[in-house]
Parts: sequence; structure tokens; C-alpha cells
Amino acid sequence: MRPVRRLTILGLGLIGGSFAAALKQRGLVEEVGGWGPRSASLQRGLELGVIDRYCLDLATAVAGADLVVVATPTVVAEQVLTDLAAVLPDDALITDVASVKGNVARAAEAGLGGALPRFVPAHPIAGSERSGVEATRADLFVDHRVILTPLAQTDAGALERVRQLWRATGAEVVDMGVAEHDAVLAATSHLPHLLAFGLVDALAAGPRGEAVFRYAAGGFRDFTRIASSDPTMWRDIALANRTALVQAMDDFIAHFTQLRGAVDRADSAAITAAFERAKSARDRFADQFVKSPTTSQE
Amino acid sequence: MRPVRRLTILGLGLIGGSFAAALKQRGLVEEVGGWGPRSASLQRGLELGVIDRYCLDLATAVAGADLVVVATPTVVAEQVLTDLAAVLPDDALITDVASVKGNVARAAEAGLGGALPRFVPAHPIAGSERSGVEATRADLFVDHRVILTPLAQTDAGALERVRQLWRATGAEVVDMGVAEHDAVLAATSHLPHLLAFGLVDALAAGPRGEAVFRYAAGGFRDFTRIASSDPTMWRDIALANRTALVQAMDDFIAHFTQLRGAVDRADSAAITAAFERAKSARDRFADQFVKSPTTSQE
Repeated sequence: MRPVRRLTILGLGLIGGSFAAALKQRGLVEEVGGWGPRSASLQRGLELGVIDRYCLDLATAVAGADLVVVATPTVVAEQVLTDLAAVLPDDALITDVASVKGNVARAAEAGLGGALPRFVPAHPIAGSERSGVEATRADLFVDHRVILTPLAQTDAGALERVRQLWRATGAEVVDMGVAEHDAVLAATSHLPHLLAFGLVDALAAGPRGEAVFRYAAGGFRDFTRIASSDPTMWRDIALANRTALVQAMDDFIAHFTQLRGAVDRADSAAITAAFERAKSARDRFADQFVKSPTTSQE
Repeated sequence: MRPVRRLTILGLGLIGGSFAAALKQRGLVEEVGGWGPRSASLQRGLELGVIDRYCLDLATAVAGADLVVVATPTVVAEQVLTDLAAVLPDDALITDVASVKGNVARAAEAGLGGALPRFVPAHPIAGSERSGVEATRADLFVDHRVILTPLAQTDAGALERVRQLWRATGAEVVDMGVAEHDAVLAATSHLPHLLAFGLVDALAAGPRGEAVFRYAAGGFRDFTRIASSDPTMWRDIALANRTALVQAMDDFIAHFTQLRGAVDRADSAAITAAFERAKSARDRFADQFVKSPTTSQE
């Protein structure tokens, strides 16, 4: 495969840094540049060899780039896509790594102008308990899934090029519609996070306060681990995926209210059936999980 | 401390076996007997040295015992407490290990008769991913909590004796009212299990079926681990603690519906506040957890 001549990472952290490192390790990129609002993590990335140069000015940072990766927080990404339109080289492809795609797709359609066909939205489902450029790992995406959500306007050649690059990092790449992606992630990631945040908050606000946690055991510890995730990042995700998330919350509340009714009327058969269906499904998919640590952003 | 002369375990599995093994290791029991409906696990316990003898007849099994531990499944425990009344030696103390105490207390009050003051209800919050007498460990209770829920009729000497024996296993022993225990466990153990069972069941029954789990990551794996617990045991727990569990489910549904409203109206401040409260509480209690594996019954 033809190497990337100049890759520019916008927002250098764990995901963008690991993408650059994965391509570097495989000889698939000649030069990596970085851009961000502050120099601290960029300077650190330079020292670690994750990037070769950086600039705080967007136009200068993307000059000469043939691939630009938007790896900023999702709320910033919307603005960055608009700012990019004016400064992007004519032949540069764009991809991103945001965990919600609908808002990014809308921002791209509104702001990218003529560069829109060269934008390939991507969501690598990978992470680490550590974050920041210091946590960069060239093997972060090995055996992890990357979901591409091409738009109607996305150029077929751009899509294939980005797909090949993600595949080269060791990821399994799948395509999905934007709305489907956001509904799937609302169900498997965003809803569970809100349940964990909501449960811990509800118990701490309850009549026993935080004293109740003294009697929690290992199951509760695992169940609530994701409630220790970054509140700001998860607020942004909840807002970015608001429509699909509210639908997922409504579906869950309806389902859980049925289970509550079964317990209330001591419907042994209904309770057993629900628990057995859940255990069967969970046991079937448990084997499919990649043996990765809990991630801070999925 | 004066050793137990003859300890009889009713329902030999992980918890009863580990209690016997802990006392044996510390020279605090002279002889351990077992009783159960079938001989298989009792024979295995004998071979492993967890018990010294066993009998399938309850009267014979408890003859000469000065301590009887009811360690059967919770639905069986209710009947066993009634059956015990007729055959229990006059000086024998009784304790149990059930994870719900209200139904056990009611069964004891209804069935134990004159032996009621010698019954000390107990709930060791400990377990293992393995179950059965083969999983017996003399150190299972070290640094774990054991909750005693003495009844109004419980004899003070009986309570102290059982407390000292549980302390001798390495556990931290605390006292709690029956209703308070069942409310606390509903919140920290039973509700999370129902949320995990409910979420997996809801997603598997959703429009995408089990295919949706292909896109789940590490956070979801941890969050749903307890949905792989034994459906029959958890149905019994849900039914035994029905009143407190329905209350906990109602409280959660109300709280989660508020969070759903905050997401729906894009109330950034309310979402952030809820996530931050949850993260703070979770981070504070995370350090308190015993480093134990996920338990099948807590």
C-alpha cells in the first residue's frame, strides 16, 4: 500500500496518537504533524516520537497533508470541520474518530463544502484506562472494530483508502449507516454508561447516602466501573447522541418496568424466563469480547 | 475461644464449606457434619476433608450438634427452619447464610418455636466465581463483611457466640435490622443484577437482536458480567426480597426518568451534575472494595 505522505492529527491524544503510531510502525506514513489549541500535549508527542512536528495554526498544520484525522473532543470536532474547509489541501482526505456520528455528519455537510466527498467518518471502538498522548500504543486497534459511516456524498476512492489504512492498524473494519451507528452505540455503550452513572447517583442521593456502598461487593464494583468515566466527555457524548440515547433510555425503561411488574406480582415464570434469556445471550457474546481493559470512551 | 464441639452444615456448598474450613483451620471446631437432600456433594465434602461425616436424615445429622448452619438455597431454608424445630438439640445455636433475611426471619418466627432465641440470622457478603463444595476456601471470609440481623427474640449470648465465630473466620461483622439489611442489599446487589439481566434481555429482544452485542466493548462486558449469574438462584432472591426490590426498582426508575428528561431537553448542567456526583461517589468507595473476584451471590 502507498504510504501517507503527510498525516496531520487534529487533537493529539490516545486515539489519534495510536493511529499515527500504528501507521508509523508499519512504514505507512512518512511524516506526522499535530495541531491543537495548546502546545503541551503536542510537545509531549514530539518528545515521544508520536509526531514529527506541530503547529498551533490550523492552516499551517494541514498544509501539505494528504490525510487529516479529526481526533478532538466531539463538540470541538463540529467547529474544526467547518474551519478545515478553508485551509484543506485539494487532495487531502479527512477522517475522524468521534464516538457519535450524526452530529459530525451534520457539521460536515453544513461546513465542509467541496471537501465533503473526501470526508470518511470513522469510529474506532477502542480505548484504554489511560488517556492522553502518553498512553499511545501502536497496537491499540489490533483485533478491535472500526466502524465507517460513509455519507451519501462520500467518494468511493476516499472510502477505500481510509478503510485500507484502518485495516493496516490491525482493526476489523465494518461499514454502517450514520443513524444505525448511533442507535447501536446508544444501546451498547451510551445507555450502559447512563445506567451506571444513574444508579450510583441514585443510591448516593438515597436515604442511606454513600454509606450504602460499604455493603457493595465485587459484582457492584464491576457494574459501576464505567460510572468513574470522565463526566465532561460523557456529557458531550450524551448531548451529541441525544435523540438515539433518549430512544434507548425509553426502550429500557419500558422493558425494566415490565420486569418490575413481574417481580411485584411474584411471576416466577416471567422472571426466570427474562433471567435465562439474558444469561444465554450474555454467555454467547462474552466469548466475542476482545480481551481489552475497560475503555474510557467506546 | 471455646471450640464448637459439633458443627452441622445443612446444604454443603461454597459458603457452608468455607465456614467449616475456616473454623477447622483455626482449631475452633472438633467435628463437622453435613446434611443435604442428596449424597453427592456430601460425599465429595467428606473426601475433601471439609466435613467428617454426613447423614441424609435431618434428625440424625443434627443430633449432638451445638451449632447448626443453614446454608441451603433460600427457598429450602424456610422449610428447613421449620423442620429443625422438632429435632434440634436443646443447647444448639442456629445461624444461616441467606442473602435475604426477611423471609428467613418470618419462617423462623413461624416455625422455630422454643429454639427461636438461639437463631442468629447472618449474611456473609462473600462468594466466588466458582461454587459448590469443591470451591471451599478457608480464607473466603477474610476481610469480607458479615451482616448479622438479630431478631427481637434473639438471645444476647447466642448473638455474641455467633459473632465471635464469624470474626474468627477473618470477617468484619456488623449488625443490622432485618428490614434495613434487605433494603441495603436490594439497592447494592439485587437491583444491579436486575438492571444487568434487564439490559441484556432488552437489547437481545430489540430490533437488532443479539447482533448488537458485536459492537460492545470492555465497559459493556464488565457492566453485564452479573447477567451471567445463575437465573434460578437470582429468581429466588428476587422473590424472597420482593418488597424491598420493587421499592428499589421504583426509586431507580424515577431517578433514571429524571436523567432521561435532562438528556431530552439538552440540560447540560443537570447532566454534568449527575455524572460528576456519580463519579465522585464511585471514586470514593472504589478504594473500599475488597480485592475479590465477581461473586455469584452477594
